[in-house]
Amino acid sequence: MRAALFNGPHAIEVGERPDPVISAPTDAVVRVVLACVCGSDLWYYRGESPHDLGPIGHEFIGVVEEVGPDVRGIAKGDFVIAPFIYCDGTCAHCRAGVTSQCLHGGGFGNHGIDGGQGEAVRVPLAGTTLVRVPGSGHSDETMRSLLALSDVMCTGHHAAVSAGVKSGDVVAVVGDGAVGLCGVIAALRLGAARIIALSRNPARQELARSFGATEVIAERGDAAIEAVRELTNGVGVDAALECVGTGQSVATALAVTRPGSMVGIVGVPHGVDASIADTIVFRNVGLRGGVAPARAYIPDLLDDVLDGRINPGRVFDFDTDLDHIAEAYKAMDERRAIKSLLRIGTKETRR
Amino acid sequence: MRAALFNGPHAIEVGERPDPVISAPTDAVVRVVLACVCGSDLWYYRGESPHDLGPIGHEFIGVVEEVGPDVRGIAKGDFVIAPFIYCDGTCAHCRAGVTSQCLHGGGFGNHGIDGGQGEAVRVPLAGTTLVRVPGSGHSDETMRSLLALSDVMCTGHHAAVSAGVKSGDVVAVVGDGAVGLCGVIAALRLGAARIIALSRNPARQELARSFGATEVIAERGDAAIEAVRELTNGVGVDAALECVGTGQSVATALAVTRPGSMVGIVGVPHGVDASIADTIVFRNVGLRGGVAPARAYIPDLLDDVLDGRINPGRVFDFDTDLDHIAEAYKAMDERRAIKSLLRIGTKETRR
Repeated sequence: MRAALFNGPHAIEVGERPDPVISAPTDAVVRVVLACVCGSDLWYYRGESPHDLGPIGHEFIGVVEEVGPDVRGIAKGDFVIAPFIYCDGTCAHCRAGVTSQCLHGGGFGNHGIDGGQGEAVRVPLAGTTLVRVPGSGHSDETMRSLLALSDVMCTGHHAAVSAGVKSGDVVAVVGDGAVGLCGVIAALRLGAARIIALSRNPARQELARSFGATEVIAERGDAAIEAVRELTNGVGVDAALECVGTGQSVATALAVTRPGSMVGIVGVPHGVDASIADTIVFRNVGLRGGVAPARAYIPDLLDDVLDGRINPGRVFDFDTDLDHIAEAYKAMDERRAIKSLLRIGTKETRR
Repeated sequence: MRAALFNGPHAIEVGERPDPVISAPTDAVVRVVLACVCGSDLWYYRGESPHDLGPIGHEFIGVVEEVGPDVRGIAKGDFVIAPFIYCDGTCAHCRAGVTSQCLHGGGFGNHGIDGGQGEAVRVPLAGTTLVRVPGSGHSDETMRSLLALSDVMCTGHHAAVSAGVKSGDVVAVVGDGAVGLCGVIAALRLGAARIIALSRNPARQELARSFGATEVIAERGDAAIEAVRELTNGVGVDAALECVGTGQSVATALAVTRPGSMVGIVGVPHGVDASIADTIVFRNVGLRGGVAPARAYIPDLLDDVLDGRINPGRVFDFDTDLDHIAEAYKAMDERRAIKSLLRIGTKETRR
């Protein structure tokens, strides 16, 4: 089969990989329909984080081609969403709802596991990992939003859940990437009364507003902190979503949060310094989050996508195919694209 | 009046201070009955944190001697607990229950505000700060527990509340100082099913057990992490209370907490490094806490003290008087005492 391969920083190409086969009785093989590029893919693309050479990508939806003898609940021909971490559904962490920390789980697109940016994927622990999408004949708009459930929408939701967003809250969202934009959707969905989005990019500001942001702040650093405090009568927000992971963005999120409240963090930390401990204690705020338990979140969010209540697929503003994978990365690296979508197969012909 | 004075590191003496007078209409003057030394007093005592020369101490109970014309709810002769931060009770943070971050509040025993380690204290914002103790003729045991409500018991409780301790939880308490020991009381009070106390001191281990600890671990650092994981089948605890504030204790608390759970931090951070951001995100845990909103917590805890359900005064294992204040600090500094109590006045004769 053909699949995107990481050959080193800034070197992503399409090459040949062995066709996936069932190697454990709990495996399934999924033929990929849509995949995409994650903001976290840019870390190794830019050479800032290590990554094995070989298959990449951890977000995909597709059609089940084959299942192992021990797979329950998923059958050949099912149209499925793959959460970006596979999980057994039965370990202590899965039972507590934190499927992303599954004691027997792992991620796609690294360490020899097939990536979503390819024609097919062997999915370990398939029965407890894949989520079947009911119905058929989904519109392209719906398909894009279903793809968003494999990671980005769940990650924005995890920021909002970790921050404890509740009805009537004033919420700040730090970061206008695809995750931050999905954080706006999630905050609105959880009942936020006001959502302050931090963004200086006109197109992203507009998308944030269309997702539910009531105010947009273009400032950064201390000026952003000042602006949010001014919008909240000096009190601070009831919850903040940290969707970047830099030292500045984490400091901003902690500084704009009112005492007694929480920052939900889903940005992978880069350059965060030790002063966050002092900030937490002296401001009486909390910091909580991590890798989103997408498998646990998808069922609820799926209902909202299928009923048209949320439309996270709108974060995809760059469409291409597997042959042009390098361009998909480049567009995001250069911030020309919020998030790149890859059309790989079709649901109908593969069925 | 006579009061303890900070003359520099390791130099604490009793000296003369002006008798407190009502200087704002919301002030009260309180004649101190019992006071004590806080673990946080040791930071400036040891020269590790700055502190103004002059009055010290922020934990006291006493009898109201005089009130300003705008003081409501508190009257001359009332026996009161002073939370260690005074507050207006009406600002946004007070209304949200975080009285320790009151926009118009402040602490006792620094920056020209009288300290609790003296014969009398001018209490700003007295009507919204002081908590009247009902009844009379309280036993010495009860009096000691009432004193504990001015800070240490509320601080242990804040660790437990911040960690989200709930019924049936397995809880780890990192730190066997007076705050950690009160954290054990608080965890039990909130319904913890198992409480794992980290302590290597036999007397403190025994007190922790008598407060409700079901298991005690003498290890530190990686060995402590390993031991807690072993006691929890490799899963981790449902909540951890961080009651020390060093880099090692914070790292231990974060490492023993199961994904999706919280660490309640009340230790003042000293030497915590930047890796805590990575730990939070990669382990999917949270860190939350700070200076305890004692004023908000006292009413509930007071009921439990008066009804004999909790007895936090047992953390005081060194009694002396104002004349021997230097010895009270020295005993704690040398870890001969868990917490030093000062008998300054008597409730009866002052009334």
